[in-house]
Amino acid sequence: MEDYEVLFSAYEAYKQRGKKLDMSRGKPSPKQLDTMERLLTAVTHSSECFTEKGTDCRNYGALDGINECKRLFGTMLGVDWNNVIVGGNSSLNFMYDTVARAMLHGVVDGCKPWSKYEQISFLCPVPGYDRHFAICEFFGINMINIPMDEHGPDMDMIEKLVAEDDTIKGIWCVPKYSNPGGVTYSDEVVRRFAKLKPKAKDFRVFWDNAYVLHDLTDKPDKLLEIFGEAEKYGNEDMFFEFASTSKITYPGSGVAAIASSAKNIARLMKELSVQTIGHDKLNQLRHSRIFKTYDDIVEQMKKHMEIIRPKFKAVYTVLEDELTGCGISWTIPNGGYFICVTMPDGTAKRTVELCKEAGLIITNAGATHPYGNNPRDNIIRLAPTFPEVGELEEAAKLFCICAKLAVIEKSIQ
Amino acid sequence: MEDYEVLFSAYEAYKQRGKKLDMSRGKPSPKQLDTMERLLTAVTHSSECFTEKGTDCRNYGALDGINECKRLFGTMLGVDWNNVIVGGNSSLNFMYDTVARAMLHGVVDGCKPWSKYEQISFLCPVPGYDRHFAICEFFGINMINIPMDEHGPDMDMIEKLVAEDDTIKGIWCVPKYSNPGGVTYSDEVVRRFAKLKPKAKDFRVFWDNAYVLHDLTDKPDKLLEIFGEAEKYGNEDMFFEFASTSKITYPGSGVAAIASSAKNIARLMKELSVQTIGHDKLNQLRHSRIFKTYDDIVEQMKKHMEIIRPKFKAVYTVLEDELTGCGISWTIPNGGYFICVTMPDGTAKRTVELCKEAGLIITNAGATHPYGNNPRDNIIRLAPTFPEVGELEEAAKLFCICAKLAVIEKSIQ
Repeated sequence: MEDYEVLFSAYEAYKQRGKKLDMSRGKPSPKQLDTMERLLTAVTHSSECFTEKGTDCRNYGALDGINECKRLFGTMLGVDWNNVIVGGNSSLNFMYDTVARAMLHGVVDGCKPWSKYEQISFLCPVPGYDRHFAICEFFGINMINIPMDEHGPDMDMIEKLVAEDDTIKGIWCVPKYSNPGGVTYSDEVVRRFAKLKPKAKDFRVFWDNAYVLHDLTDKPDKLLEIFGEAEKYGNEDMFFEFASTSKITYPGSGVAAIASSAKNIARLMKELSVQTIGHDKLNQLRHSRIFKTYDDIVEQMKKHMEIIRPKFKAVYTVLEDELTGCGISWTIPNGGYFICVTMPDGTAKRTVELCKEAGLIITNAGATHPYGNNPRDNIIRLAPTFPEVGELEEAAKLFCICAKLAVIEKSIQ
Repeated sequence: MEDYEVLFSAYEAYKQRGKKLDMSRGKPSPKQLDTMERLLTAVTHSSECFTEKGTDCRNYGALDGINECKRLFGTMLGVDWNNVIVGGNSSLNFMYDTVARAMLHGVVDGCKPWSKYEQISFLCPVPGYDRHFAICEFFGINMINIPMDEHGPDMDMIEKLVAEDDTIKGIWCVPKYSNPGGVTYSDEVVRRFAKLKPKAKDFRVFWDNAYVLHDLTDKPDKLLEIFGEAEKYGNEDMFFEFASTSKITYPGSGVAAIASSAKNIARLMKELSVQTIGHDKLNQLRHSRIFKTYDDIVEQMKKHMEIIRPKFKAVYTVLEDELTGCGISWTIPNGGYFICVTMPDGTAKRTVELCKEAGLIITNAGATHPYGNNPRDNIIRLAPTFPEVGELEEAAKLFCICAKLAVIEKSIQ
């Protein structure tokens, strides 16, 4: 590693340039969105607004979504499309709603609403997604950290906790290309989830399959389909799976879906009927018209990969050049939206702070953990999809300088 | 009135024809939807997806909606557009969410969540909208009937109840062209709402302005704007106003909004940020591009009126011809989507039942009241917008026969 003085003067040079850089946002770039222009003209005439069943998508109705779009998600997720509800533009909103309903109504007959407990808990594999944790925090649900390794969350710990404590009611999972670690759960991890024996009958797994098709290589990870496994143990009611086209078509105007057991979906339909008359079917129809077959989606995902992959590579190159031998490691995921950097303990926050002072925005170091608190202060999430390559290289270089400065500062404390 | 035998044989003739008729659905007809075809092509190129501020509507963000669309609702409702949040396609969903959040988080600092009370109540002006009542029922909120007259709900009763009982937390109002009575609240009623002094600090008025622009005559009703009045008494935090373009553009793919005080909106933004990253901005943009000025909306509403008015008139003609002098009355509203028929007590359910047996679907007679229970069993809601005129005339004739049969049956009991 360079001397502190050398690094510091390089840092000061960046700072004085005053350029604004941003690697905080896990959002697609305009170029990616441009590949979807045909979505805007997928339905342009009144006569085209009807589903294969003849439903007028302009009018009220079809609470569970249109069949064409339900099948699309069925294929994407490898589940029975009859057990899919297609909704609005936000899978996060589906997750929030699912927790909110569980708080006020419970999730299964004969179990009281979660809000009637003095305290309930969710298991939170870490590092994880801050918006999952925010939902728990909003509803006053206690969060318990579960460590992750390259195979997924610590299943020994999960099995033990859920078997012992019936106030543990849920767990957040991003089973493929996890946010931010990029981990895809191994077949063994998925199988152990499928046969979990929680003490609480109303324990639920929130299986957020946000990156189901979001590969970054030609040899993508494969995730075992959860409902097929769970059914072997009669455990299919334990899972709510979520997905969306936010990072396939448009983040703001995609389509989200929830999949679950037939029993859960029937219950959900009753509950949803109080909430809305139906979601935006025209947008569902647009998606079905663009993606007539599974291959059409695969084709689209290749376009995303072609745009994103060079960005990840640009960052890797800088990280390799600048951080090799510094006690800092990073993920090279086969998909997803993030690079996850592991720093020496106690240096992540300081790194992000140094970045910020020099004009580079990075996601807050604690955001990967419940309550914004990573006890080891060692994880940083980099999001390379939005900026262009040149900007990314600059940002990555500045990040490396800040990381090394933070490491040196820590070592001389 | 004709003899029972004459009526009954006419009824049997209808029955044997076996034709299916439907006056149950308050939804626009295909012809109305066809007038909005330009919405489908309002945004067709990637370069057109940006707001006046430069926000890319395809991507994440803009939790409160795009400014263009916020202003649109500000103008429609006569409120400050800064105090508007534009959301997805369903104002019902906004209402549900608002009650759900109140249940779990309360509506104001220092007051406990509504779910922490043994029992809370909502006031429900009747006849009213069954989907409002369904939300209360879903959350276990007790409902208290408030009679309506041609000026609005019984304000003496409301003032007395809310002053005495701090477990009364809300009231459902459709202040213009009420569903189903077609009543627009008088200025005096609006002013008495504006200066209500509820015992509960967390009492809230759910002001569902669903028919704000939905006139059926050239001399439409005028509703006093509620926030302007409420501010005179420092009462603006007491109101949540809801509206949508569901019956202006497309019921399935419209845009919904909530308006409230600056304080409530700020609180709501914090809460919403946990729920979603943002609603469908592209659809908001489509609406803003179609409706550049208030006049553009007025123009559109005229098209709806031209299509709907003859349908209402067709029903009135039959009702006048068939029911005059039978002790049955009906509304002739200046706007909205319904004709509300008042029958002799104890004959509404039987009328709907007779209709159903002969193939005519009418909204269940109790649906206008909480718990589906109208103690007087005297109100029937007719929805004439969806069927074509010929079909409506047939349906109205059959309805009249059933109504008279029910009245005779009752009289000879």
